[in-house]
This record gives sequence, C-alpha cells and structure tokens, in this order.
Amino acid sequence: MSTIHRLSDMEHGELRWQHVALRAYGPDNSGAERATRQILIGTNEHSSHFHMRYFAVQPGGHTSLDQHPHDHGVYVLHGRARLRLGDEEHELGYGDVVYISGTEVHQFFTLGDEPFGFLCVVPANR
Amino acid sequence: MSTIHRLSDMEHGELRWQHVALRAYGPDNSGAERATRQILIGTNEHSSHFHMRYFAVQPGGHTSLDQHPHDHGVYVLHGRARLRLGDEEHELGYGDVVYISGTEVHQFFTLGDEPFGFLCVVPANR
Repeated sequence: MSTIHRLSDMEHGELRWQHVALRAYGPDNSGAERATRQILIGTNEHSSHFHMRYFAVQPGGHTSLDQHPHDHGVYVLHGRARLRLGDEEHELGYGDVVYISGTEVHQFFTLGDEPFGFLCVVPANR
Repeated sequence: MSTIHRLSDMEHGELRWQHVALRAYGPDNSGAERATRQILIGTNEHSSHFHMRYFAVQPGGHTSLDQHPHDHGVYVLHGRARLRLGDEEHELGYGDVVYISGTEVHQFFTLGDEPFGFLCVVPANR
C-alpha cells in the first residue's frame, strides 16, 4: 500500500514527520552527542527492495565508524559534515550525494553549529 | 567504488550536480512542459540494489501517467505538486515523503510558479 509521510516541523534543528517514530541513534555512549534516526520508508511501508531513513547528528556529534557488506545512498539535507570514507576525508554540505559501496569504511562528523541531517538509502535485505 | 557528486548550482530553478549528466524527461511531447532527470546513483556508480534519481518538472508540467511493477521512494526537495496516486489526489510540498507501491498508478503535476523537484529511489533491477 502506498503511504505519504508529511513533514511536520523542525525540532532542535532536525526535521520531523507526522506519524514517523523518532528513534535514538547512539553509536557511542561514551561521548557522542545526541543523534536521531527516523525510518521514512521501511518495513512499516512494506518496502521490500530499499529503505529510506533520515539521520540527524547534533553539533559535535558523529555517527559510528561503520563497515558492512551493504551499500548506502546518502543525500545531504542540511548542515555540514566531515566524512571519513575509506582512507580519505571529504567535507559535505547541502545537496551533496554520496554512494558508499559495500565494505567501505565510513563515518560522519558534524561540522559547524548546525545539526547535520541526511537521507540514507539502504537495501531492504541487509 | 564509492562516489561523491557535489551540488554545483541552480539552473532554471532546478538543482545541478558536478559530473552528472542532465537528461531530458519527456513523457508527453504533445504539451507537457520541460522536465529533466539526473541519475545521482545508478549503474555508473555500480549500485546493484537501488538507484537514486532527481527529477525536476517546470511550472505547468507533469510526469507521465505511470503504472509498473516496481515501487518508488519519493522525497520532495523543492516546489509543490499534485500527486495522482491510485484513485486519490494529494498535494505535496518540501520534505514530504511518498512510498509508491508496485502497480500503483501515479502522476505528478507541478503546482505554482516554481519548478517541482524530487528524489526518486527505485530498485536497481526493474
């Protein structure tokens, strides 16, 4: 069944949608700033090929250092970040698109005073 | 291999990325206004599970009336549209998310004076 999730408002500089659960995303309880995750398209929507999630990482925060077999499609919606991608580092801002292939090491660090927010597409089966 | 596509600028109210080909999207040559398509993550990026595209439809324009087995994940980046989705109609704006399940009839009509732009995620094999 098709589904629409409407953007409702901003909270702490992060996007919020109607009827979408706000989840804590805590890759590092020993010091990472608060980060959140919202599943915009997932198992609730019966999406069997891909899922779309929104992550927001507050200033000073970062995502976990990840390496896994599945790939990511990232679209930056707000803020800036430094991306560790394999052996390289890149600075990202609004509208930048990153394809992170499977097994590539990756980690996002928020830069500046605004939360970093991005869409992250993954295979449904991972 | 991982890839970054950087947002470069706006043109005719549409987003443009470095090193991403601009393609015409012409569902209806008999009167639809100009629409464009850019493949942000696709076969060039060796993405084997999902593809991410950006579509922009100028004021007065629309996408084709589509019905196909594969599903869509849509994220609205700018502008407004009326969406025909099955037997229903919905108005969409910035940040709204639509999951269009397979076989659902769908068509977007740009509303207002600004181009309507959205991300559209699809299965790589379709």
